[in-house]
Amino acid sequence: MTKLTPRSKDYSQRYNEIVQEAWLAENSAVRWCMVIKPYGYALWENIRDVLDKMFKNTGHVNAYFPIFIPKSFLNKEAQHVEHFAKECAIVTHYRLKLDDNKKLIVDPEAKLDEELIVRPTSETIIWNSYKDRIHSYRDLPLLINQRANIVRREMRTRMFLRTTEFLRQEGHTAHASAEDAENETRKMLDVYNDFATNFMAISPILGPKPEHDKFAGAVTTYAVEPMMQDGKALQAGTSHNLGQNFAKAFDVKFTNDKNELEFVYATSRGVSTRLIWWLIMAHSDDTGLVVPPALAPLHVVVVPIFKTSEELKLIKDYIQPLIERFDTTRLDFKSKYFHDTIPLRRKIDEDDNKSPGWKFNEYELKGVPVRITVGAKDIANGTVEVFKRESGEKANVKLEEVDLHIDQYLYKAQNNLLKKNQEFRETHTFVVDNYNEFKEKIEQGFVMAHRDGTAETAEKIQKETSATIRCLPFDEKDEKWKCVLTGKPSTRRVLFAKSY
Amino acid sequence: MTKLTPRSKDYSQRYNEIVQEAWLAENSAVRWCMVIKPYGYALWENIRDVLDKMFKNTGHVNAYFPIFIPKSFLNKEAQHVEHFAKECAIVTHYRLKLDDNKKLIVDPEAKLDEELIVRPTSETIIWNSYKDRIHSYRDLPLLINQRANIVRREMRTRMFLRTTEFLRQEGHTAHASAEDAENETRKMLDVYNDFATNFMAISPILGPKPEHDKFAGAVTTYAVEPMMQDGKALQAGTSHNLGQNFAKAFDVKFTNDKNELEFVYATSRGVSTRLIWWLIMAHSDDTGLVVPPALAPLHVVVVPIFKTSEELKLIKDYIQPLIERFDTTRLDFKSKYFHDTIPLRRKIDEDDNKSPGWKFNEYELKGVPVRITVGAKDIANGTVEVFKRESGEKANVKLEEVDLHIDQYLYKAQNNLLKKNQEFRETHTFVVDNYNEFKEKIEQGFVMAHRDGTAETAEKIQKETSATIRCLPFDEKDEKWKCVLTGKPSTRRVLFAKSY
Repeated sequence: MTKLTPRSKDYSQRYNEIVQEAWLAENSAVRWCMVIKPYGYALWENIRDVLDKMFKNTGHVNAYFPIFIPKSFLNKEAQHVEHFAKECAIVTHYRLKLDDNKKLIVDPEAKLDEELIVRPTSETIIWNSYKDRIHSYRDLPLLINQRANIVRREMRTRMFLRTTEFLRQEGHTAHASAEDAENETRKMLDVYNDFATNFMAISPILGPKPEHDKFAGAVTTYAVEPMMQDGKALQAGTSHNLGQNFAKAFDVKFTNDKNELEFVYATSRGVSTRLIWWLIMAHSDDTGLVVPPALAPLHVVVVPIFKTSEELKLIKDYIQPLIERFDTTRLDFKSKYFHDTIPLRRKIDEDDNKSPGWKFNEYELKGVPVRITVGAKDIANGTVEVFKRESGEKANVKLEEVDLHIDQYLYKAQNNLLKKNQEFRETHTFVVDNYNEFKEKIEQGFVMAHRDGTAETAEKIQKETSATIRCLPFDEKDEKWKCVLTGKPSTRRVLFAKSY
Repeated sequence: MTKLTPRSKDYSQRYNEIVQEAWLAENSAVRWCMVIKPYGYALWENIRDVLDKMFKNTGHVNAYFPIFIPKSFLNKEAQHVEHFAKECAIVTHYRLKLDDNKKLIVDPEAKLDEELIVRPTSETIIWNSYKDRIHSYRDLPLLINQRANIVRREMRTRMFLRTTEFLRQEGHTAHASAEDAENETRKMLDVYNDFATNFMAISPILGPKPEHDKFAGAVTTYAVEPMMQDGKALQAGTSHNLGQNFAKAFDVKFTNDKNELEFVYATSRGVSTRLIWWLIMAHSDDTGLVVPPALAPLHVVVVPIFKTSEELKLIKDYIQPLIERFDTTRLDFKSKYFHDTIPLRRKIDEDDNKSPGWKFNEYELKGVPVRITVGAKDIANGTVEVFKRESGEKANVKLEEVDLHIDQYLYKAQNNLLKKNQEFRETHTFVVDNYNEFKEKIEQGFVMAHRDGTAETAEKIQKETSATIRCLPFDEKDEKWKCVLTGKPSTRRVLFAKSY
């Protein structure tokens, strides 16, 4: 097993090593696309399923829209086309054939009348279908969610963070008033925050994006901005109030309760496999990944220490009552929007091709919260050895107490991860009023500073420091002061950070 | 609400009406692709999730491979390219631009070096990645499943049955011996059969496909062939033993336990949203869809009969204890490969824009297994009215007995649907030894007949009767007799049917 590069030495290299060594993803034969490997995909399944329940608990239903967007649709919303036309996969033909030299070529006679774009996002195809579905205020709200693959051409690929194809959930809702649309936008930001805090164990900063950095076609974009262990930010969850822009582009009107014809109000939002990047960047340590128990593909791995199959049998008989208790255990990670329990996921690793030491490394690298080791001595003592990944503690625990001991540890580990993430963010967030200090502190974390609100100032700061305005935090109070760069008046601090 | 066309009058038209009226799917702006609407998607989610647990219970893990297949990959397996090159979506460019007249065009300078095919199936991209993953027999078996969208161009679209894009699960496994691969192929056919029988409530015929009708690149293809209500067959679940074909195409070798280098053995399989077509065609009646309870998006709908909000409140208070019992009820549809329970899914329809009569129609059309009606009179009597969709019975049931009554009914309805499907198939399957009788009976259902095993005979029968050999049923006994068309010798009857 490769020894990981320490975080302090090369954070970025270490990330790549974890993705590879923990079997999360790998490069594919198609440049710019990744293969999501079983352990990475299991993480995504847990993320997706928890979010799915949160969406259903807030009245949303799933549906599925075509992967292809007719070229003309992209052109209907001006900002939209500008943003997405540059980075798309275009289907132009529908048949291959063997040429005279038996070479496989695109059949020039099989050209599509209108080219199709592999969806970079689904607003246009969905709003086109809403036209037939929405007539009266009684048809509203329409709260639809989709789980889909998305394609946006990326040249500089980074697993989970930036690949041409990625998986995501995208919500697309329709409302009878601007107020309803704004409420939905904010509520779903709250759902993302609930998920980040209580499942990802990440404490983000929330607020609207600045005017020049909104989603293409949005009136307001709200973002969830967490801090990574190198002090940088990453936008990974956004909730957009689209106003009437898409309804106008696709001519979707409804009769309101005053019997007047009006354009429908819209919202959209999404989070993607990029969340796995969050998770790795927020919680890894020098041994590897640390997975928050609320999302762990595997909570407990049992490593029996044995030489013969008789020894293995003795161990398995010994732990059988414990395994049975595990198999009926459901863990309680309830939150504001998640009301279910999750099963405790466990595995006994009996593979005799691999040494216990190899297995220890493997599961620590993958961030499995608990490892139980059992050998002949443990049987004699009526105990097992419990290793706790988050705290690094080891303990000998009486067999009959192990399951309760582990339950309590899993909740504690989940809280510790959140607490560490929050403390790290707080100790790496700096309130700054001087541009020289700004340039120094921005290398260490988040900077809360005043700015004059112009695009020019934002651009200049970005050019000189690589920092961008991540959001206008809800938690900031109004305060009359002056821009850190130009000295012009400002009324509120905003969040600056370097980002991925 | 549209009155449905009776099955006896136009079975095909009636299918389209159910898909539309029960909100399952609709045409999209992209010709040949469908929008799967929330109720149709909820059915798919239940299908997918049950299958997913069956796969996990048989040792499979999920992963995700790129949606794009490099053109050259298709060319590596000869049968594969022949089958899939004719009907694919080809990405040739990666950027759009506005031309001088502000028209959005494909940027001719953004041409891909190698064209990408939107996956019509994933064997090639997956076997290319297995090359790096498999080295020794210790790496085997590799049991991977993928849930993905698939694109195969279809000109004559029919919702769920045949659309250019569809959703499916595809399994791709790698093994150390021909025997292991064959065992896996047969076991997964058994999983599909378990699912069809115990969840879809459909009793299919199982067996290998004839030589000329195997999957492109397979050694053997096994199929699950159920009968629709018009006596036709539909292949909707297939399990393929791929032998060493894909390993040879992608040069995937392993060191076996005798330390010799050998090509890896493979299997693949899949079922898709086409299963929804099965479900509709197998269980609908003249009122609409009938959903097997084991897969129902909604088991129980409560329709309160009220005029004022006070009346509604009284009804809701009255049924509150029942609703609470529903919310902790888990239904037991355990089977050979599914060991979980499923929640009872219920809804109270309080919408005062729609009349009770409209709602009754709506939920009967959607095939919701149980409807409960409650009004003032029921409160006075301490009862509710229970309507059972499958049997068409109505009963007044004491409030405290309703939940148990419903549980029992749901299991009974599930069994009845399976029994009806099986009886229908049995009474519409004919053992035939005479070609004139063959031509008559094939219009009524399945025909078990002898044939000489040549492709010419199969073709001639198909040309004259539209019937194809669906499979070589496992259940048929060896029996020396002669071909129904040519009189040449035959050793076993095969299953003929007309199909979709």
